[in-house]
Amino acid sequence: MITQSGQNKTGGRFIVFEGIDGCGKTTQLHLLHDWLQAKMFPQTPDGFPMVMTQEPGATALGRTLRQILLAPNHRDEGVDATAELLLYAADRAQHVQKVLKPKLAEGCWILCDRHVDSTVAYQGFGRGIDRALIEQINKIATDGLVSDLTLWLDLSVEVSRSRRWGRGSGDRIEQLDLAFHRLVQQGFESLAQEHPQRIVRIDASGSEAEVALRIQQTVGDWLRTHAIEEL
Amino acid sequence: MITQSGQNKTGGRFIVFEGIDGCGKTTQLHLLHDWLQAKMFPQTPDGFPMVMTQEPGATALGRTLRQILLAPNHRDEGVDATAELLLYAADRAQHVQKVLKPKLAEGCWILCDRHVDSTVAYQGFGRGIDRALIEQINKIATDGLVSDLTLWLDLSVEVSRSRRWGRGSGDRIEQLDLAFHRLVQQGFESLAQEHPQRIVRIDASGSEAEVALRIQQTVGDWLRTHAIEEL
Repeated sequence: MITQSGQNKTGGRFIVFEGIDGCGKTTQLHLLHDWLQAKMFPQTPDGFPMVMTQEPGATALGRTLRQILLAPNHRDEGVDATAELLLYAADRAQHVQKVLKPKLAEGCWILCDRHVDSTVAYQGFGRGIDRALIEQINKIATDGLVSDLTLWLDLSVEVSRSRRWGRGSGDRIEQLDLAFHRLVQQGFESLAQEHPQRIVRIDASGSEAEVALRIQQTVGDWLRTHAIEEL
Repeated sequence: MITQSGQNKTGGRFIVFEGIDGCGKTTQLHLLHDWLQAKMFPQTPDGFPMVMTQEPGATALGRTLRQILLAPNHRDEGVDATAELLLYAADRAQHVQKVLKPKLAEGCWILCDRHVDSTVAYQGFGRGIDRALIEQINKIATDGLVSDLTLWLDLSVEVSRSRRWGRGSGDRIEQLDLAFHRLVQQGFESLAQEHPQRIVRIDASGSEAEVALRIQQTVGDWLRTHAIEEL
């Protein structure tokens, strides 16, 4: 999904939302977009130039790759783990070169739902694929592009599960899902510890409005120290 | 295309055919297959275990990736050069893990139409993509698998063009094609110089029978010194 508003040009910023499934990041991404437009940049009559996007599947190529990975004939053959990493990397390279870098060069602010940290958390921590290999492929795919700010929406695995599954029946699939997401959650925790300058932890418990307020405070502080002076 | 004959098990060998379009490698790969079966391994009643395969497109995933790269909606968007490299690498990783390595482990001999050298020659020398990046991605995709013998069918760009286009009209598209294949040809020449132990140049001029005889002599010599003693 790519939604663009506004026409003005200034120094672009790349903000990423990360977290386990059900943590609320897609909702919060849209809320932050609306808040930035209304509260932080009200002086721009045509709207501030912002792009809401996501990985995977933001480009035509990416949407097709997503379908491929789910197609029955490939599931029968089984998609090799490295081949799958390379397909997601192709989606990312296409996104970086066709959307992120051109839009940043135009001065757009980008709000992106998932980026490189998801690959480390899900494929590395979740599925146990060699992390050095993932980092190497991520580096190729991003061509040196790194987010200015990554908001990690930290929600417990149990709460995120209940949001995704409703009141749990506790069956085997749900238990496997729970175990997998615990590993992914550990991945995000490790990444946040390793990159304290880039990744900011957001407490994602509570109501949508409570979480939105926390994000607004974090981004507001960040804007004042990192970005706003150049606008 | 994957064609397998025979059931016997012994130490596998990985033989690759490389060269510019129109050099005759697909025909010669089939001729070598038949010659090896009939002349070198006639003592195997059920046929010697051999696989004829190709890159890209030997797997279900690979065939779909090929279609993607040619699909009109992606052509409109334009496929980024790195994304394209990563898609071909995904095809290769799937081929290596689902076909090449398992078949070699079973003791099959593999005759493969194009492999890593084509990526260096076409994408690197032909299109000018950074060679270090290509080598890095090739290394990830092959997971350390290297051919035992690569036969480079060396045919002049002019002769290969006349095989592909018939008597040339000399129009602009043909001229561009000629210039591109000259660069690719230089790529194969450089690779053969860099890897004299792995890559053997075969003079691909003359009749099919003449080229087949040269390949049989080369492979026969190679078998006697590198492979046959272990059979």
